Amino acid sequence: MPQAAETEAAHTERVEFRVSPDRYRHWKLSADGPVATLTMDVDEQGGLVPGYELKLNSYDLGVDIELYDAVQRLRFEHPEVRSVVITSGKPKIFCAGANIRMLAASPHGWKVNFCKFTNETRNGIEDATANSGQAYLAAVNGTASGGGYELALACEHIMLVDDRSSAVSLPELPLLGVLPGTGGLTRVSDKRHVRRDLADYFSTKSEGVGGKKAVQWRLVDEAVPRPRWDDTVAERAAELASRSSRPQDAAGVVLTPLTKTATDDAIRYDHVEARLDRDAGRVDISVKGPQNDPPASIDEARSADFWPLAVTRELDDLILDLRTNEPELGTWVFRTEGSPALVLAHDELLLSSKEDWFANEVLHYLKRTLRRLDVTSRSLIAAIEPGSCFAGSLLELALAADRSFQLAGVFEAADSNTDEPATIILGEANLGPLTMSNGLTRLQTRFWGDEAGYEAVAKRKNEALEAEDAADLGLVTFAPDDIDWDEEIRIATEERSSFSPDALTGLEANYRFAGPETMETKIFGRLTAWQNWIFNRPNASGPDGALRRFGTGQRAVFDRKRV
Amino acid sequence: MPQAAETEAAHTERVEFRVSPDRYRHWKLSADGPVATLTMDVDEQGGLVPGYELKLNSYDLGVDIELYDAVQRLRFEHPEVRSVVITSGKPKIFCAGANIRMLAASPHGWKVNFCKFTNETRNGIEDATANSGQAYLAAVNGTASGGGYELALACEHIMLVDDRSSAVSLPELPLLGVLPGTGGLTRVSDKRHVRRDLADYFSTKSEGVGGKKAVQWRLVDEAVPRPRWDDTVAERAAELASRSSRPQDAAGVVLTPLTKTATDDAIRYDHVEARLDRDAGRVDISVKGPQNDPPASIDEARSADFWPLAVTRELDDLILDLRTNEPELGTWVFRTEGSPALVLAHDELLLSSKEDWFANEVLHYLKRTLRRLDVTSRSLIAAIEPGSCFAGSLLELALAADRSFQLAGVFEAADSNTDEPATIILGEANLGPLTMSNGLTRLQTRFWGDEAGYEAVAKRKNEALEAEDAADLGLVTFAPDDIDWDEEIRIATEERSSFSPDALTGLEANYRFAGPETMETKIFGRLTAWQNWIFNRPNASGPDGALRRFGTGQRAVFDRKRV
Repeated sequence: MPQAAETEAAHTERVEFRVSPDRYRHWKLSADGPVATLTMDVDEQGGLVPGYELKLNSYDLGVDIELYDAVQRLRFEHPEVRSVVITSGKPKIFCAGANIRMLAASPHGWKVNFCKFTNETRNGIEDATANSGQAYLAAVNGTASGGGYELALACEHIMLVDDRSSAVSLPELPLLGVLPGTGGLTRVSDKRHVRRDLADYFSTKSEGVGGKKAVQWRLVDEAVPRPRWDDTVAERAAELASRSSRPQDAAGVVLTPLTKTATDDAIRYDHVEARLDRDAGRVDISVKGPQNDPPASIDEARSADFWPLAVTRELDDLILDLRTNEPELGTWVFRTEGSPALVLAHDELLLSSKEDWFANEVLHYLKRTLRRLDVTSRSLIAAIEPGSCFAGSLLELALAADRSFQLAGVFEAADSNTDEPATIILGEANLGPLTMSNGLTRLQTRFWGDEAGYEAVAKRKNEALEAEDAADLGLVTFAPDDIDWDEEIRIATEERSSFSPDALTGLEANYRFAGPETMETKIFGRLTAWQNWIFNRPNASGPDGALRRFGTGQRAVFDRKRV
Repeated sequence: MPQAAETEAAHTERVEFRVSPDRYRHWKLSADGPVATLTMDVDEQGGLVPGYELKLNSYDLGVDIELYDAVQRLRFEHPEVRSVVITSGKPKIFCAGANIRMLAASPHGWKVNFCKFTNETRNGIEDATANSGQAYLAAVNGTASGGGYELALACEHIMLVDDRSSAVSLPELPLLGVLPGTGGLTRVSDKRHVRRDLADYFSTKSEGVGGKKAVQWRLVDEAVPRPRWDDTVAERAAELASRSSRPQDAAGVVLTPLTKTATDDAIRYDHVEARLDRDAGRVDISVKGPQNDPPASIDEARSADFWPLAVTRELDDLILDLRTNEPELGTWVFRTEGSPALVLAHDELLLSSKEDWFANEVLHYLKRTLRRLDVTSRSLIAAIEPGSCFAGSLLELALAADRSFQLAGVFEAADSNTDEPATIILGEANLGPLTMSNGLTRLQTRFWGDEAGYEAVAKRKNEALEAEDAADLGLVTFAPDDIDWDEEIRIATEERSSFSPDALTGLEANYRFAGPETMETKIFGRLTAWQNWIFNRPNASGPDGALRRFGTGQRAVFDRKRV
């Protein structure tokens, strides 16, 4: 058998995130009235990259892309679904976690990016439970190890079959010399409140814990014998469904296929366009505002063509595509184009319809997509020019940026399509619904510890702010005029691409999240950073490291020095 | 000039943390009434390890060991000091931060350990400001870069000389491809509330920011022209002193030299003994309780011989010694020996005298020392045996452990010096004063999310709890009896030493800090983990990395892939 190292996966094909249930290879989605069931039944031969078999319901990025799609579709296409059961279609095994051969053969960046996406999908499950009235139930009908148990941890309620062989476990440390990569440690301590010494013991015991002890230690909520299994799962799912706020008799909104064309130097959707400059290591992303007034009511908006939903889906897909497929393009420059008033009008329709299930879904989806941007390891720059529409929800792109530039005045060279100066407009969308993973809005985070600054800005809501004003208020970083504009943006992006990409990633991961921490920021900040470090160490990924030696019959050789 | 890589420092000599002002090479401590001045004047030839010169007031571990000593002595030996000015004895330069040649030549573990200690010393400065009535003032009388600015950031008030050349800066990212390693990013955003985009800009601009802009951006509190410098520093120091709670006319307690003997397999102090088992990778640490009743009053206790102070100093020195000099001894097993009642009596004297400056200092010192244990990258195990005194303050050692074992019953083999079963006693010291860096006590952290469990335990205060009771209450992990005792502890420690040391470090860094995060936990958890990762990446530490190439005239070569 070749050593894992020799099969180091190339991942040369572009990874595609667009999928739909009829093309799933690993999951079955059945929606039957208020309870949907997501059955994991991984196709061993269905790996995204050659070189490994997805045995024992282990997963790779491709499996998780389908799961992400299913969670999204349940929210938009199935308003009638009030609880979701995740279970396994294989006997005796719920899920063995991320495929180890895949991990061992993957380059560092691939591992990190893969973990980030699976983390986001797990957070999405918790977001659906908390904010969509779709509570997730893990029906762990066989052993759940590593990422398999982490999938269960993302669910509201965990049931484990009590059959003297099924267990939950986090065997990453004893078997692979790494940490659980998808929030496991944080959820064990901060969500399930497992006592730290028991958590420590549990995470070093590769065979895990089952039965009553798993309940006693809070690792699962209940252990149910096989004879009562199906009935109890149905009962619990019905209980969760009965607490849901989902509407009665609403029709779903079908997430129609995204229109996307990709060439070597551009990715284009209907509302979003990305131009890739490989020499400069930069992507110029342009987002178009709505072309028309919003529908008269939210009832008339229920469609995948509704601009806020359409643009969010495109942004989401673009972020995932660039993050996975274009790791060398380290700086993303955001521009917008269109009418600020129309953006605000669409925001207003959403915000005034917040009680409506569909408006609620669109807002939370936009929130999650912006959070995906926050944890993206690329430098983000906003260029606010005449003709742009950085207002309300789209202003969040500028607030998410590491730096923003707003043109003072107009471009003198007159091929610009407007002679009105660039403005930004703060709207209601910036003041509450679109929280970051730290629980604060981007505006609150920006003015963390500066209440006077925050108040001064909030007072100017709905005012079109030109560059000097916006800079004085602290809403943009710099306000160069026409003479300096190109030069300043060029220097900023060139300088960025001259720096260590790793140091930039660490800098941004720290500065983007001032203030409080939540389970989500702990997962992305604390746990992920430790995992990245461990993934990168010879004790895990060196030729004699535990991750590479797993399954070879040879023990890992460790440098015993504690760091 | 040899490349930094070729001079990779050996650090073979044992690092000694015991020092005193008469032996300082790099600092001058002058205490003149209520205002003390700490002047940094680094001896270029005084590096701890050959191979680098400490130019421009740059520092290595040896410089920081002296600073730590000075901060400690100011608290204990100088009750009259109410504010402390940190300034530079060199013209035009305040401090250039950690010595880059030293960093470039140091192995990964040394860099990480060095940063941890400097972090702890900076936190100690903030602790003195917050809890000792000794507020620190950074009188930045020349450029402060990197760790030099981070030293200023740890002070309550930062004054920068306004002379058109002096600036504060964090040039780590643009010059070295790493992050500021001593809390810089976190303090800039979470303590000084510098806006995130300005912080981003500042941290990529190697020349830094000075004058009015530094004030405007909140990087410093004031910029003062040279002619008014001395007067203004004196004025601010007097203002800070006037707000202090320090006593009038108290006599200091001299921190007399610690008695310590070290051989190849043991380190011994008066109350603490460590036996080093290199084959097993383990240290057995034994702490003796007090031999006598406490003094009748805190006034009679004022001496370095007072047991709580003496034992804390010994533990502190031992932790630092083992952490730095014995990285391969990955598991520390704590035992205690003595009378639980006498430990509680000493606690009681301290806690009932909390308003007294000396009692206050001892309590905060113990708090800091236990925090040092919490962030130590070693597996911590407590073995609670008959004759032990895990009560009150010493019970914190068991609560700090990753796992604890308490013997059920007694040892049958009768060479044990007692036939009373082992007990633990929860005291007032466990319920408030000795907080972890997350702001909670170890008991609160242990029962995070389990209020009922916490209440059940708190009710049993002052009760001697035998093993089964303690295990049922969740105060210890396991309660084996005589038959299983040796075997269980042996397996636990052997197993520990078979695991990846890196994965253990990451696991422990996560599980030890359930619940809320503070600036301190963000520095040790989030920022440090990112920095460790970056330090370890070829872009920083590889032969062509920025840290290794600095000063060679060659530019770093980066792998541009964003991770």
